[in-house]
Amino acid sequence: MTALIVFAHGSTVAAANQSIHDMAARVAAGSGYVSEAAFLEIAEPDLPAATKSLVERGVSRIVVLPYFLAPGRHAERDLPRIIEELQSIHKEVKIEAAANLDGHPALVGILLDRAAAVLEEH
Amino acid sequence: MTALIVFAHGSTVAAANQSIHDMAARVAAGSGYVSEAAFLEIAEPDLPAATKSLVERGVSRIVVLPYFLAPGRHAERDLPRIIEELQSIHKEVKIEAAANLDGHPALVGILLDRAAAVLEEH
Repeated sequence: MTALIVFAHGSTVAAANQSIHDMAARVAAGSGYVSEAAFLEIAEPDLPAATKSLVERGVSRIVVLPYFLAPGRHAERDLPRIIEELQSIHKEVKIEAAANLDGHPALVGILLDRAAAVLEEH
Repeated sequence: MTALIVFAHGSTVAAANQSIHDMAARVAAGSGYVSEAAFLEIAEPDLPAATKSLVERGVSRIVVLPYFLAPGRHAERDLPRIIEELQSIHKEVKIEAAANLDGHPALVGILLDRAAAVLEEH
C-alpha cells in the first residue's frame, strides 16, 4: 500500500497548518492514495511521527511531497537527511521524496489569477 | 501604467532567488504588464527599491503578488505594513497586494503531478 505525505514547514499560524491538512485531504481525493500532512517544525505531526503512523497502518511505500516553492535548505538539505534516517528505521518501507513545487508550469497561472482578481475588481 | 511585482521571501540559495526572477519574467509574458521580482529579505531588490524603480519608470499602479504558499507573518503582517509605508512615500501611485497562493485550486494538481512523477518512474 502506497501513501503520500504533504510535507510543509509548519507555522505559528494555525490556519496555515490547517491549510496543509486540507491539502492532504485533497491529494487523497485526487490520487486515491492515503495522504497525510507532516511538518518540519512547529506543527505536528512531524515526518517521523507521520511515517510511523502510516507504517503501523500497513503502508509499504511512502512518497513525500515537499510543499515548498523554491529550492532551499528545508527541501534540499533537511528533507533528504530526515528521509535517510527514516529509511534506516523503517527498512521494510520504501520512502522517497518528490520534487518541490518550483518550476511547475501551473504556478505562473496562479499568480496571473491572483493579479487578475485585483485588476478586475476596479 | 500598471506593473506587477512577484514578492518572495528571499533565500541564501541563489537558484531560489533566480527562480523568482524567472517567475516575474513569465508573469510579464503572461499578463502583458511590466513585472519585477522583489524580496522581503536576504535578496535584492527589496520591495521599496523595486517600487521606486517602477515609479521612476512611470508606473502609476502596482499590484504586489505574494509568492507565499500559506498565510503567515510575512504575507499577512509584514507585507501590509510595507505597502502602507510605500503608499505614504509614493502618494501618486496606487499600490495593492493580491492574495497569496494559498487556496488556489491548481495547487493540488501540482502536488499530484509531483507524486505521479515518482510513482510512474518505477
